[in-house]
Amino acid sequence: MQPFSSYKAPLPELRFILNDLLHIDDGLEELGLARGFDREAIDALMRDLARFAEEVLAPLNRIGDRVGCVWRGDEVSTPPGYKSAYDMFRHRGWAGLGAAVEHGGQALPTVLTNLVTELFGSANHSWLMYHSISRGGYECIRANGTPAQQAMYLPRLASGEWTSSMCITEREAGTDVGLLRTEAVPQPDGSYRLTGLKRMVTAAEHDLADNIVHLVLARIEGAPPGARGLSLFIVPKHLPGTTTRNAVRCDGIEDKMGIRGTPTCWVQLDGARGELLNTAGNGLAAMFVMMNIARLATGMQGLNQAEAAYQLALGYARTRLQGRKAGEGSAPSSPADPLIVHADVRRMLLTQKAWTEGTRALAYWLALQVDRSKAHPRPQVRQEADDLVSLLTPVLKAFATDNGYASTTLAQQVMGGWGYLDASGVHQYIRDVRVGQIYEGANGIQGQDLLGRKILGDRGSRLRKFQDMVRGTLEKNDMHPVLRPWISQTRTLCSRLDALTQRLLNRAESHPDQIGASGHSYLRVLGVLALAWQWIEIASIAQRKIEAGQSGAFESAKMVTARFYFAHLFPEVEHHLLVADQGCDTVMALDADLF
Amino acid sequence: MQPFSSYKAPLPELRFILNDLLHIDDGLEELGLARGFDREAIDALMRDLARFAEEVLAPLNRIGDRVGCVWRGDEVSTPPGYKSAYDMFRHRGWAGLGAAVEHGGQALPTVLTNLVTELFGSANHSWLMYHSISRGGYECIRANGTPAQQAMYLPRLASGEWTSSMCITEREAGTDVGLLRTEAVPQPDGSYRLTGLKRMVTAAEHDLADNIVHLVLARIEGAPPGARGLSLFIVPKHLPGTTTRNAVRCDGIEDKMGIRGTPTCWVQLDGARGELLNTAGNGLAAMFVMMNIARLATGMQGLNQAEAAYQLALGYARTRLQGRKAGEGSAPSSPADPLIVHADVRRMLLTQKAWTEGTRALAYWLALQVDRSKAHPRPQVRQEADDLVSLLTPVLKAFATDNGYASTTLAQQVMGGWGYLDASGVHQYIRDVRVGQIYEGANGIQGQDLLGRKILGDRGSRLRKFQDMVRGTLEKNDMHPVLRPWISQTRTLCSRLDALTQRLLNRAESHPDQIGASGHSYLRVLGVLALAWQWIEIASIAQRKIEAGQSGAFESAKMVTARFYFAHLFPEVEHHLLVADQGCDTVMALDADLF
Repeated sequence: MQPFSSYKAPLPELRFILNDLLHIDDGLEELGLARGFDREAIDALMRDLARFAEEVLAPLNRIGDRVGCVWRGDEVSTPPGYKSAYDMFRHRGWAGLGAAVEHGGQALPTVLTNLVTELFGSANHSWLMYHSISRGGYECIRANGTPAQQAMYLPRLASGEWTSSMCITEREAGTDVGLLRTEAVPQPDGSYRLTGLKRMVTAAEHDLADNIVHLVLARIEGAPPGARGLSLFIVPKHLPGTTTRNAVRCDGIEDKMGIRGTPTCWVQLDGARGELLNTAGNGLAAMFVMMNIARLATGMQGLNQAEAAYQLALGYARTRLQGRKAGEGSAPSSPADPLIVHADVRRMLLTQKAWTEGTRALAYWLALQVDRSKAHPRPQVRQEADDLVSLLTPVLKAFATDNGYASTTLAQQVMGGWGYLDASGVHQYIRDVRVGQIYEGANGIQGQDLLGRKILGDRGSRLRKFQDMVRGTLEKNDMHPVLRPWISQTRTLCSRLDALTQRLLNRAESHPDQIGASGHSYLRVLGVLALAWQWIEIASIAQRKIEAGQSGAFESAKMVTARFYFAHLFPEVEHHLLVADQGCDTVMALDADLF
Repeated sequence: MQPFSSYKAPLPELRFILNDLLHIDDGLEELGLARGFDREAIDALMRDLARFAEEVLAPLNRIGDRVGCVWRGDEVSTPPGYKSAYDMFRHRGWAGLGAAVEHGGQALPTVLTNLVTELFGSANHSWLMYHSISRGGYECIRANGTPAQQAMYLPRLASGEWTSSMCITEREAGTDVGLLRTEAVPQPDGSYRLTGLKRMVTAAEHDLADNIVHLVLARIEGAPPGARGLSLFIVPKHLPGTTTRNAVRCDGIEDKMGIRGTPTCWVQLDGARGELLNTAGNGLAAMFVMMNIARLATGMQGLNQAEAAYQLALGYARTRLQGRKAGEGSAPSSPADPLIVHADVRRMLLTQKAWTEGTRALAYWLALQVDRSKAHPRPQVRQEADDLVSLLTPVLKAFATDNGYASTTLAQQVMGGWGYLDASGVHQYIRDVRVGQIYEGANGIQGQDLLGRKILGDRGSRLRKFQDMVRGTLEKNDMHPVLRPWISQTRTLCSRLDALTQRLLNRAESHPDQIGASGHSYLRVLGVLALAWQWIEIASIAQRKIEAGQSGAFESAKMVTARFYFAHLFPEVEHHLLVADQGCDTVMALDADLF
């Protein structure tokens, strides 16, 4: 099988989002994060990343799926080509794009490192994961490490010389980390000896980097049971400054549905030497920073796999001749018309397009809020941005991956029987994106986090801030005849969401299961609303250009896609508003034995 | 990897459907099809089939996926164990369960051969396909063959000694069979020589049977282009009564996402000898009988894969301890509660359960209509049954496979990270069921068939008959307080569907793309309605038993599941009623270049 790549980075899309929607240069200036990153510099970076994604990473995507990782002894070989691509990536300094300058990084804001997550992820999600996990490890040690720990680990992670892994899950403890058993025994020199068996650890062993810095959640001997007894440890594969191989090894890797270019490892700790990160009993809090990064990145995965699969399906729909256009208008010179003339094929393509473009706008906006939450000079703005990030992180994670799975499936559907064959390359996207709904907190957990912690936890105050902002956008564009019906739909949804939230606030007090029963549908409603808001922002810009006579095909396409969004996808809320409003007894009534 | 099987045939479900819902003994008596098949005999058959499914077929399901078929030269080896299972199946006479007595078969009605499709399909869909295709071949030759052809082929197909394949698709002709190029040249002896390259042919080569009877769609030299120029031919691998190997061979098999235990073949015809089946130019009509059988069987595939995956997920949810029940009530003696205490997990399980049980009731009812359409003594009843089958075949095919894909995905979601691993066995169901949305007419085609041919084609007359029947059920149970809200929901939906249909009838006259634009959503609405109708039938029986004091856990479960159906799944129509009503311009407006 020859290398196969058709992915093209959607640069016009990204320019529109960064420049027209987000005014990225002013935005970064305001945050003191510009550092010479004007539009031209950003565009040059984007083009470099795009070229690497298209020419180096995308051609390795299928071989990663076919060959996968190979475990032998306690070593893991990555798929052919991964190592040389990783070396190129390292030597370009891209492992440190988001790292601090003092660690040798380039201190790019999140809204720009997001370009890496999108472009490299669309091209080759499995390959990107080695770096994504390390980004999380870097931020975790940066937020929690002592100066000595920071000095030891951060420059090596920023250079890509070392990578990191996150050892959390055990056989009996997945979502419920309170059940973890790995034990850490204090040593006279202040270090710890860790013993236990971790599983489902991404990239805990591989041949890309010189050393792997495991971050391990464990319980110090004698600590209380449950989550509050957990501490976080740095457990490097090779002890720095020595030639000693630490007593941590990869005991096997999993065969799995997708992301087969990334090893999912069993990790055996046999009295491995570790250092405490942050303080004893603060393991979960210390990990928190990493978890949020991972959730946003997982949302991006939903988006980037959908984009890549859409491109394949679109190419097919334009060239595959099959059937005739309904009614008149087909080209009699060809044996048949291209698939894209058929209304149902267009419905499937437009669904993918409207979800992907709307989600992209939301995701980059949210990434900019991450930057504002850290760097804005005014504390109040930082707090507001932080509230929005906290509210919308579970939404982006779950909504974008659910839609990503549906989108890649639609891409395959457009391609018909051909799409079912390995040769089409499309079903890898379905299998790869599927994990995004499962890991980093399964999507059901996101729904509960949203409704339980983020909405009911502050009695709707973060939601009100978000809705105020949405209503501001509606207000601003209200007089526009083309946008007005969409604005009216969205405004009505805001009110219905307010009323629903109030009812759920009341019910959940006496019925704790209500959160679990309504979480999924509630999250879908908020996701549809967030995308509606973005589509109105997008359409208002496109429409202004059209009216000013400055528009082209790009703006026309935006208007038609917005219209499709409001006609075909927005009405999903009618289903979910009804379901979220059901009393939890509907799902709790059946005896467990009677299922 | 050890053989892995957890599938248990849902016998209580099947008894409820056959006995309580369908009154199968009276039903068959009325059709003159009873032939000694009383309840006891049916139950004994069901138990035999169930044992074979559980003990012989289910343990081969995973090895079929892992090892797949192997092509070498022009031969295909089936996965280990397939052949001996097929021999057992043959020797029990089950290949001829549905075949006529004069061909050595047992002349079982469709409603009973459906048990094979469900039970064997749940256990091992890939294995079952060899037989399913042959069933279609048998019916096709029976409906179209000369007495000589029937005498030659039907007994061998009924005994399972030979199997059959259906050679339709070519590289440039998938959905659009009018583009087929395979050519048949008449010979002086009345036979034909066929030349062409077919692809995507299921089970065109394998090692289970002594001979393979290919049914080949081709164009007789000089025939007009398009579908009306097509004829159907019998092209056996070995020419009967001779030792001659015909010039038809398998030129390779496809690597694909799922159903890896069934070979998807390239078939090269190099002047292969064939006999015309039916008359010249009647190829499509001759194939029609097979296509309808295949569509109903594909709907069953959606159901049977959903059932098997549900069983896995349920077992996991009952035993996997993770997290605590919201609020109070968890068991403090165990480290955590089983997953099934969580509201969101229950939502996912109940979705699978309500879809699967409702679809099963619909599918067996529809199978009985197939029998009524053939065997009822009164022509008018036969016609009515035929109308219902024709209306609901595309609904069952698309609705059940779309839900099957969503269901198996939910099963995997319940199983979390474990479900993503090969070891869990669940993702095979997703990959296997996925093809059901694609083959035998992609689901978009089913939507168009439904709305274009079945609804608009007779200006809603078949739909009115169906709705009359549904309204009859509503009427009959209207006074029942527990059922009344569901009846009211369903009655309202009937009216809304009438109004929608009327609007679409009007619009489609001037806008032919309306059918493609609305077909998908229209089909979803009709599917939800059909299941609502079945759930009311089910609930009315369960409720009567409860009131008569004859009920147990089974009836309680039915009532709670019905309630869930109307609260959580039924509201999907709110989305699709709006979408189906959109003018087709929403999907047609975007220029093909601007996607």
